[in-house]
Amino acid sequence: MEKKTITYGMVGGSNQAFIGDVHRKAIALDGRAKLVAGCFSSNPDHNRETGETNHISPDRLYSDYQAMAKTESTRPDKIDFVSITTPNHTHYAIAKEFLLAGINVVCEKPLCFTVEQAEELKKISEEKGLIFAVTYAYTGYTMVKVAREMIADGKIGKIININAEYAQDWLLDEISENEKSSGKKFSFWRMDPEKSGISNCTGDIGTHMENMVHYLTGLKIKRLHATINRFGHALDLNANMIVEYENQINGGYWCSQLAAGHKNGFVVRVFGTEGGIEWMEEFPDYLKFTPRNSATQILSRSSGYITEKAASYGRLPAGHPEGYIIAFANTYKNIISTILKKNAGETPSEGDLDFQTVTDGLNGVKFVHAVIESADNDSKWVTLD
Amino acid sequence: MEKKTITYGMVGGSNQAFIGDVHRKAIALDGRAKLVAGCFSSNPDHNRETGETNHISPDRLYSDYQAMAKTESTRPDKIDFVSITTPNHTHYAIAKEFLLAGINVVCEKPLCFTVEQAEELKKISEEKGLIFAVTYAYTGYTMVKVAREMIADGKIGKIININAEYAQDWLLDEISENEKSSGKKFSFWRMDPEKSGISNCTGDIGTHMENMVHYLTGLKIKRLHATINRFGHALDLNANMIVEYENQINGGYWCSQLAAGHKNGFVVRVFGTEGGIEWMEEFPDYLKFTPRNSATQILSRSSGYITEKAASYGRLPAGHPEGYIIAFANTYKNIISTILKKNAGETPSEGDLDFQTVTDGLNGVKFVHAVIESADNDSKWVTLD
Amino acid sequence: MEKKTITYGMVGGSNQAFIGDVHRKAIALDGRAKLVAGCFSSNPDHNRETGETNHISPDRLYSDYQAMAKTESTRPDKIDFVSITTPNHTHYAIAKEFLLAGINVVCEKPLCFTVEQAEELKKISEEKGLIFAVTYAYTGYTMVKVAREMIADGKIGKIININAEYAQDWLLDEISENEKSSGKKFSFWRMDPEKSGISNCTGDIGTHMENMVHYLTGLKIKRLHATINRFGHALDLNANMIVEYENQINGGYWCSQLAAGHKNGFVVRVFGTEGGIEWMEEFPDYLKFTPRNSATQILSRSSGYITEKAASYGRLPAGHPEGYIIAFANTYKNIISTILKKNAGETPSEGDLDFQTVTDGLNGVKFVHAVIESADNDSKWVTLD
Amino acid sequence: MEKKTITYGMVGGSNQAFIGDVHRKAIALDGRAKLVAGCFSSNPDHNRETGETNHISPDRLYSDYQAMAKTESTRPDKIDFVSITTPNHTHYAIAKEFLLAGINVVCEKPLCFTVEQAEELKKISEEKGLIFAVTYAYTGYTMVKVAREMIADGKIGKIININAEYAQDWLLDEISENEKSSGKKFSFWRMDPEKSGISNCTGDIGTHMENMVHYLTGLKIKRLHATINRFGHALDLNANMIVEYENQINGGYWCSQLAAGHKNGFVVRVFGTEGGIEWMEEFPDYLKFTPRNSATQILSRSSGYITEKAASYGRLPAGHPEGYIIAFANTYKNIISTILKKNAGETPSEGDLDFQTVTDGLNGVKFVHAVIESADNDSKWVTLD
Repeated sequence: MEKKTITYGMVGGSNQAFIGDVHRKAIALDGRAKLVAGCFSSNPDHNRETGETNHISPDRLYSDYQAMAKTESTRPDKIDFVSITTPNHTHYAIAKEFLLAGINVVCEKPLCFTVEQAEELKKISEEKGLIFAVTYAYTGYTMVKVAREMIADGKIGKIININAEYAQDWLLDEISENEKSSGKKFSFWRMDPEKSGISNCTGDIGTHMENMVHYLTGLKIKRLHATINRFGHALDLNANMIVEYENQINGGYWCSQLAAGHKNGFVVRVFGTEGGIEWMEEFPDYLKFTPRNSATQILSRSSGYITEKAASYGRLPAGHPEGYIIAFANTYKNIISTILKKNAGETPSEGDLDFQTVTDGLNGVKFVHAVIESADNDSKWVTLD
Repeated sequence: MEKKTITYGMVGGSNQAFIGDVHRKAIALDGRAKLVAGCFSSNPDHNRETGETNHISPDRLYSDYQAMAKTESTRPDKIDFVSITTPNHTHYAIAKEFLLAGINVVCEKPLCFTVEQAEELKKISEEKGLIFAVTYAYTGYTMVKVAREMIADGKIGKIININAEYAQDWLLDEISENEKSSGKKFSFWRMDPEKSGISNCTGDIGTHMENMVHYLTGLKIKRLHATINRFGHALDLNANMIVEYENQINGGYWCSQLAAGHKNGFVVRVFGTEGGIEWMEEFPDYLKFTPRNSATQILSRSSGYITEKAASYGRLPAGHPEGYIIAFANTYKNIISTILKKNAGETPSEGDLDFQTVTDGLNGVKFVHAVIESADNDSKWVTLD
Repeated sequence: MEKKTITYGMVGGSNQAFIGDVHRKAIALDGRAKLVAGCFSSNPDHNRETGETNHISPDRLYSDYQAMAKTESTRPDKIDFVSITTPNHTHYAIAKEFLLAGINVVCEKPLCFTVEQAEELKKISEEKGLIFAVTYAYTGYTMVKVAREMIADGKIGKIININAEYAQDWLLDEISENEKSSGKKFSFWRMDPEKSGISNCTGDIGTHMENMVHYLTGLKIKRLHATINRFGHALDLNANMIVEYENQINGGYWCSQLAAGHKNGFVVRVFGTEGGIEWMEEFPDYLKFTPRNSATQILSRSSGYITEKAASYGRLPAGHPEGYIIAFANTYKNIISTILKKNAGETPSEGDLDFQTVTDGLNGVKFVHAVIESADNDSKWVTLD
Repeated sequence: MEKKTITYGMVGGSNQAFIGDVHRKAIALDGRAKLVAGCFSSNPDHNRETGETNHISPDRLYSDYQAMAKTESTRPDKIDFVSITTPNHTHYAIAKEFLLAGINVVCEKPLCFTVEQAEELKKISEEKGLIFAVTYAYTGYTMVKVAREMIADGKIGKIININAEYAQDWLLDEISENEKSSGKKFSFWRMDPEKSGISNCTGDIGTHMENMVHYLTGLKIKRLHATINRFGHALDLNANMIVEYENQINGGYWCSQLAAGHKNGFVVRVFGTEGGIEWMEEFPDYLKFTPRNSATQILSRSSGYITEKAASYGRLPAGHPEGYIIAFANTYKNIISTILKKNAGETPSEGDLDFQTVTDGLNGVKFVHAVIESADNDSKWVTLD
């Protein structure tokens, strides 16, 4: 039977950017969605060049996203979804435009700037009956899915404690005295409130902690308090948080872009009454699992001790590292399956729906706002919802 | 400027197999070669299904590889290369058929069964002026390329010692008394001399040790002695070797498919008078480097301490795991660049030619034969070449 | 020249306890102090047996510490110091008794229950001109001393962030539903406020975080806020804290006795503008050091890249694990050197004085009180000092 | 009950040496043997100073070992054993002297230079009914004992493969061109055949591989072949070996003092039909255990999953690193228990006798000779026994 395919368009993701290409490669891995339209850059040269690289027909290469949404929505072969990989400050307007044009949306995180915007996008997508996925793509790793299933299966008992951190060091030059004295100027867009909103570090990486813990455990943050460090800049570069979940247990969170020695150190530990689980994004093919009073086990993608459903995400034999692009591909696999079923008038399965949505994006926006609000108010408790 | 693309066909690689799909995904990552023809399986259903999955036009879906070579060679839009991912015993005949038909070949390792076959393939490809790549794809990892450059740059001084191992545990069931007593029957094709030739373990994974050390250091094995263990089976499941290189230094090699706890434990250590380097395929994004009398350094894909040329292979920011498919993609990137230049009448650069060829495949066959010959002759020294 | 020696006595540390024996073994390693008196247990059998095991003369085996302090203080060959390794609630009274009797004191942490008690002990020791050491013995590890020197030397620049955790899992049975349903009863003394004061987890292990960060960096906590989790018990079993240092930078702290998979997971990370340092007590012979924009280095005890003064603590060639007892021995080495010099009327060197004192013990008590006060007051900021 | 104690003397082990002090500290840890006599150095100043440091009575401080053996053997309070920690070339004569004087011997490895010497020492000790221990002290680590019990209990099934390595880098300066050109001269005694016999690297560290594998598994080497590398020096600095055990399975061994990045990298892996075990001396408190088709487990010293007998060696709670001196202490613990029982006319238990003896020393000498003989004869097979 021929593989069913759909089509998609992109806003953002010129050849000059990083994450757009990851989206394209991840989608290409399974070959079930074809890129046919795009508005890749506001720079006409970059837009044209990226269109050519991706064999986009000239009539579907758009100079602005409004035209793209309008034109595509009226074509008989209109795109099945749009993938938005532009800078953060533009997500809201672009996503809204495509939703109003009746097109399914896949959007990078953080979803948008304000809780109101996020709630509006959620409302529109629900009213229109459209798919709205947000690419918290780390949830696509096979061993993350294994961890989630193990927790749901009670392998670690009742959850009693959470510890999460996301540490990088790539912005260290921004505050180094040695660099400053060299006269070098910094102009990273993530540090610019116009483009990043109220937060740099928490919005860019800290939000993954809230999302991943929720994905793994189902726990929702009830309230939190936080400190952030701006080190003379407009936005946060480091943040510490203590969160309180619905069941009155706590979690310690830390994110930083100034932690020398950490390239992409995203680590989540979930502890329960009967065991603990640890996952690190830098070594995503492994999962540490310690049953109470037993030796720590190093699980990897392999038959035997991981469940069938989660194992179905593994695309290589155990021991062969899968990596980041496969995590994205697993995310898109479910998004595309869901769209295919919806197009066919079928009901997506629970497995198909295993991707992060506008609701998760909204939760992320609330989390970021709560962190900054607490930190800017002497670390008072801020309640979410 | 539009991205230049070429076309390719596959022999082997049905949806039921593993490695063929890896090749397709790796090629798809860069989108510079399109799969347009195939003879994916001798099973007509599997062949048809795989053709459909990959959108192969019915007239280019072939029931036998001879027909494919013949027909494709006469088409004006003939494939630019064929990728051969069939079981080992068929590589020789298929590769020869396509070479004779004037089509560039990319073939899985081990190249073929005998030294004579390998030499014949090498000769034909040279006479015909065709590209003949062999996918020792681990050489495509960014940090392997970094290691190679560091060694060439003298970072570890004069090489004095090598240690390599490739340990897996997936065939342990074959010799477990517990499994035997369960009445379970095993019939893995790699254990069948008809399909694997004279070696299972050394031919499948041991050969990577010889290839990788040569790739990293340029060293050639002069002679070796070995023991193998068949544990009552027709072919080797475990092998130990001591090799002697041109410069009279030695290396200790070990490969096994019976080493519980090792999923894909390919580790190469190169020691020199001024330092040492270690790389592990299970954590391919890292490289251990210890300068003499200094602390061990953990290098990762990142600017600053890795050279520009090697760094150009990195496709993600440091800290994001790249994985196995990107190693394959890097290999194909160079193969495709070379074919594109050749098609355009240009001379491929040294960087384009950074992939393993029929000569490396021939060296691999010689190595495997030497190991088995030594082991079957009370571990006598066997000279290569 | 004969090695100069002194004598000491112990209160607590019967053969039935753990930490007393560690003290004896650590002191025995260097052979400069001889155990000659003791009141090892309130249980007469345990006391007598431990006395015999340690060859204590019957006239110096005491049934209560008051008698011991009184008698020893009047002997011409009175002990040079007493080592107190009793449960926490008795530290204050015992230490005071020996100070008043004019005998130098070495006391386990936590020093005592209240800030007032700690200040009183500090005052008496200063008035009497007596040594009062508190065995925060992790500061005795060679690589901790190396880290301290590197930070002082500016190797990581200006400190901008701290992360510390101390996670164990040995009290998990206390809250496991599976264990409870088995009818098993728990009665660990650390969970009893009478014996542990206001805190179990923070007082027992959390206090090491405050102490170690101060030892490594010189930083003092200005204020902190915290949550603790008692899980139905009288005292804390898990705690999260955000601390603020004098220079307005922050630190995230976490301690737990319920973190499955962590046996004695004490980890401290110090980040600066020019690099970062990480030390783990479970692998104490190593130190991770990452200079800004460079590869992470794994330092170990060895010549070349560690400073002479710190290296002098290493007692074995690099690669041979030194372990916990040597950390204690290094601590006692300095205490004994200081007492020897004092006895001889000489001034101890800065190196001799490199051990933790009653002032550090006082700081620890303040820290523990601040954590519990904050947690019990809806995580309000609590200022230290 | 008072702790029973015995006395001992030392030959070698001046304050200027390393390993003698380790022996003294290890014995001191348990306090059951008191050092009362010694001939610490042929240098009278060093001898006297070490005697004073250790409070040796002047009449039991000897200027030559012959006088020591003679005098001690006639004292009513003669030493219960002598500990020999002199350079290798003197072991034989000293050990023989004390045996003939009727004194139990503990001797450092390698035992002596020739198989004949070793056999003679074995014969004398047996005839005299004396204890003759050889301090292959790595067998004293708790987790080594755990591994041994697990293997004996069938946890990894029937053994099918061995891999061992012992890699250091401290002699790299000896062959560095950079160092040579600096005019620096090297004169390490281990490189001198007069003092080290026929082997440096294999005799010093390689011998631990043979001993440890035998200790863990009971397997004896039937024959082996080897290459060694002298790099222009008189003795080996690097060696590769393939060994064949009684049951026709093989092992790959490698030892080196030129492997940059390895400080004391002693690693032994034992693979069986039902699982595998790995132990590393640099992280001695941990043991990797992988049951067939299951996740790798990281065992540590702790209740629950390690057997009672082996666990009895642990002296600290899990998570606190024990280190090298405790391994020595565990070895001496059994030696001293055996001597105490023998003195009391009792039969030592199997547990008491868990230390390496002159027979193990003899096996070590045979192993070293076989390696050098094979390497010097074009890697021919050399049979042991």
